[in-house]
Amino acid sequence: MRPFKLASKEFKDQNTIIEIKSDFKPVFIGEGYCTVIAGPCAVESWEGYLETAKFLKNIGVHMLRGGLFKPRTSPYSFRGLGKEGLDIMVEAKKQTGLPLVTEIMDIRDLDILYDMIDVLQVGSRNMQNFALLDELGKVDKPVLLKRGLSATIEEWLLAAEYILNGGNGKVILCERGIRTFEHYTRNTLDMGAVALVKNLSHLPVIVDPSHATGKWELVTPVAKAAIAAGADGIMVEVHQDPEKALSDGKQSLDLNSFANLMEKVKKLSSLENKKII
Amino acid sequence: MRPFKLASKEFKDQNTIIEIKSDFKPVFIGEGYCTVIAGPCAVESWEGYLETAKFLKNIGVHMLRGGLFKPRTSPYSFRGLGKEGLDIMVEAKKQTGLPLVTEIMDIRDLDILYDMIDVLQVGSRNMQNFALLDELGKVDKPVLLKRGLSATIEEWLLAAEYILNGGNGKVILCERGIRTFEHYTRNTLDMGAVALVKNLSHLPVIVDPSHATGKWELVTPVAKAAIAAGADGIMVEVHQDPEKALSDGKQSLDLNSFANLMEKVKKLSSLENKKII
Amino acid sequence: MRPFKLASKEFKDQNTIIEIKSDFKPVFIGEGYCTVIAGPCAVESWEGYLETAKFLKNIGVHMLRGGLFKPRTSPYSFRGLGKEGLDIMVEAKKQTGLPLVTEIMDIRDLDILYDMIDVLQVGSRNMQNFALLDELGKVDKPVLLKRGLSATIEEWLLAAEYILNGGNGKVILCERGIRTFEHYTRNTLDMGAVALVKNLSHLPVIVDPSHATGKWELVTPVAKAAIAAGADGIMVEVHQDPEKALSDGKQSLDLNSFANLMEKVKKLSSLENKKII
Amino acid sequence: MRPFKLASKEFKDQNTIIEIKSDFKPVFIGEGYCTVIAGPCAVESWEGYLETAKFLKNIGVHMLRGGLFKPRTSPYSFRGLGKEGLDIMVEAKKQTGLPLVTEIMDIRDLDILYDMIDVLQVGSRNMQNFALLDELGKVDKPVLLKRGLSATIEEWLLAAEYILNGGNGKVILCERGIRTFEHYTRNTLDMGAVALVKNLSHLPVIVDPSHATGKWELVTPVAKAAIAAGADGIMVEVHQDPEKALSDGKQSLDLNSFANLMEKVKKLSSLENKKII
Repeated sequence: MRPFKLASKEFKDQNTIIEIKSDFKPVFIGEGYCTVIAGPCAVESWEGYLETAKFLKNIGVHMLRGGLFKPRTSPYSFRGLGKEGLDIMVEAKKQTGLPLVTEIMDIRDLDILYDMIDVLQVGSRNMQNFALLDELGKVDKPVLLKRGLSATIEEWLLAAEYILNGGNGKVILCERGIRTFEHYTRNTLDMGAVALVKNLSHLPVIVDPSHATGKWELVTPVAKAAIAAGADGIMVEVHQDPEKALSDGKQSLDLNSFANLMEKVKKLSSLENKKII
Repeated sequence: MRPFKLASKEFKDQNTIIEIKSDFKPVFIGEGYCTVIAGPCAVESWEGYLETAKFLKNIGVHMLRGGLFKPRTSPYSFRGLGKEGLDIMVEAKKQTGLPLVTEIMDIRDLDILYDMIDVLQVGSRNMQNFALLDELGKVDKPVLLKRGLSATIEEWLLAAEYILNGGNGKVILCERGIRTFEHYTRNTLDMGAVALVKNLSHLPVIVDPSHATGKWELVTPVAKAAIAAGADGIMVEVHQDPEKALSDGKQSLDLNSFANLMEKVKKLSSLENKKII
Repeated sequence: MRPFKLASKEFKDQNTIIEIKSDFKPVFIGEGYCTVIAGPCAVESWEGYLETAKFLKNIGVHMLRGGLFKPRTSPYSFRGLGKEGLDIMVEAKKQTGLPLVTEIMDIRDLDILYDMIDVLQVGSRNMQNFALLDELGKVDKPVLLKRGLSATIEEWLLAAEYILNGGNGKVILCERGIRTFEHYTRNTLDMGAVALVKNLSHLPVIVDPSHATGKWELVTPVAKAAIAAGADGIMVEVHQDPEKALSDGKQSLDLNSFANLMEKVKKLSSLENKKII
Repeated sequence: MRPFKLASKEFKDQNTIIEIKSDFKPVFIGEGYCTVIAGPCAVESWEGYLETAKFLKNIGVHMLRGGLFKPRTSPYSFRGLGKEGLDIMVEAKKQTGLPLVTEIMDIRDLDILYDMIDVLQVGSRNMQNFALLDELGKVDKPVLLKRGLSATIEEWLLAAEYILNGGNGKVILCERGIRTFEHYTRNTLDMGAVALVKNLSHLPVIVDPSHATGKWELVTPVAKAAIAAGADGIMVEVHQDPEKALSDGKQSLDLNSFANLMEKVKKLSSLENKKII
């Protein structure tokens, strides 16, 4: 017997489809949809973010991502614009109608994020920050739960279980690569985990091909692979000028490359009977 | 600078397409093709192998696999029929016209396998058996080189380099999952490696979704993912009665499930402009 | 150039020796000392904890450990007595004079722990909880920073750097095993890391042989190995009745086995010229 | 139930002590001894090897190591002197009386090595070269079986089982570090495995601190840790001029550093009641 309960297919046979409510058109994520989340690693400037947001809206992206509080390995790296960046994201939502996803690292930020952000992301490094998971279990807001760098599938589902057990059923799982001995890529995308979690759990599962590979030239093939393996969507880092990005430039697609990815993902979604528009 | 030379795109810009010659219709493997290799983990009996082989032929498989000398973790496990099994495989080739792939574990078996077998496989555990690689570099026979359980991409390409440097240019790379901390799946398929090796090297790259996952129910989604990521083919374990298989039963597809996989792979190959028939 | 600064030997040539102040006799940790921290995984009861504490005091242990807020993989496991347990620990300090170590998981607990606890532990799962590290950088209290389950040595030292950069120079590093493919032991103790960090950094380094191995019968040999490799101390799980422990019973030593370990560690410390009394 | 039989303590309660016979004074390896094997990674020259051998003999080393056929990741690296080097090793044995250890990579070399070499080493990359293990099971010659780079403890003992099951009971296990995500050290020495295998098996277990760490400055602390953890000996790379070594220079001790290591290991062995002279 697996130790997770509420996350399991035994508990809930029918796949969960989560509706992302915002002031605009709702977005759905789960079985039968291919939901695309895109945007820069970090929100860096008004101009850059709004330009990117409008471009993404026009080619059919469903949600905007952007980092406000960046978990950085070194305290000396750029750590995000914080609350200033939030105004930029909110303006982008206003202009595009797209719901917003951002990472919450500190429980104390919940108040300021709750009203403005449509999906709260728990990053890899916080997958087992149980104090944070407990709080997110108490709110009525979808949570995008990234798999920890070295979390087993079981631990990942048990982290989801914390949120579900707290009373919040809107958990979106996101596979973003695990840490292995291989260093030509930043992480190792665990595609078997995507297929397996779709079997074990009713929760939606998406893939982040940007962190998984760390190289922009691998993002498109790996994104396609994710859809073919049954993922319910992808979350991709896109930057209007990757070489000047303050973080994760090497794994960010520029606007044209991302438009190209969207074309391919649309064709594949159609073959797989997943709604993408 | 990467340490591999002959395997690199810098050395040879154009992707290598390998022709598998046999007494029958040739098979190609490389860019633009989706080549499917299938068969049981081990050759176990005349009846079972021939039945499976004919079925596979009829649904469009290109090559037959089958283990004669099985590398088993324990000396007490079934270690293959050895030379007896070779007669069975040869008969299957005669009846189906499909070329044969089998693993060579011992240099001293080269003589008996050379005449009958069309592609010699080097298994994961022997990826750095340099004495074996040196010998295979001297023969005119395609070699299917599986990535070692814990081999980096660089080590894998350098193992290929041993064969290429010996004079044999016909190397097919096969990603079959790497060893990680995750134990819900047998191994962790490294899909980023597939995409990356297609960028770094001109050699064909195929994927073994059976060993990569260790669970038959994950084989089809992962095989599809491999094609979507750009793999040049797949190698799949198929058994006419997986529950009775003497090895790897849990990861073997039965004939119907495999026919279903073929349907899906054909559609995907068509979308990807890869010839599969 | 390594990316950590304040933690490096280049920045501070002389090894840091941290004085643990409490209302009783001070304890030192760092070069030249072999400091022993012991106690149960979780504080479970008044009687059990006080009995254990007195025993540990009598055989020469320097600090008491005990979990109040337990990070548990599953939400359904025992998660600690919380604030109730704190009273028990404080009573144990009163009776034994030994300073206290406990894990802080939630920034919001800092207030209640600050006055009573002498060393705040950051657990493996929170090693990159940067919001927590930032706060601990602002307080004048020693921090015991466990290496993350899959943290590189560089990431571990950069996590320390967050605390040092915040202004708190009292960081004790604790190697507790990393996650690998090996499952006969709970984790894989990285003894090379202990020796290397002693070369790279001026900070004290201790070893937790209990979590590193997950098996009580391996705790003593691995604890000895740690001292021989140059560790400045050990932190060991001890329980008065391991079979009845609510968590980590399999890796806990009973009182007699721990007394035996202390004998061996004392002899070894003497050979290594480390003060243990 | 563990799947290994002949290697287990259940099968043979009393620890195996292996006598290394040669034309000179016998050497013992197993419980109660601390056996030291040392020498350069590869045999490179008459002068260098003989000088090193005499030095090692004088400070109490028990056996000489030296690579003749080197398994190298790249075909373009120095691959050893081969049969020419064997003459050098044999002369060193003649001059010092110390038995010889060298790696066998190719079954076909067994004939030329058998008469001259006292312990045949199976390297990490060949730990599951079952054809080789089968042959070594048939000969009356001690085998030093290194743990594979990514072999579990179970697989390692099952590899030993191949040799034992073939009829050769003289297997010495050697832990040399496993592959993990950590790259500041070459490999991660698994000290818990050393302690565990001493519990699970009656076979002698030694440690190779040179390959385990890849850095000469970590070799001494890790070698000491191995003895403290219960290892029956160590195998160390020593070179008369490490900066000029054709392989593994960075992890080789020079003669003075090794003499220093020997002093420390002798004191520790004395504390641990292990015979070292």
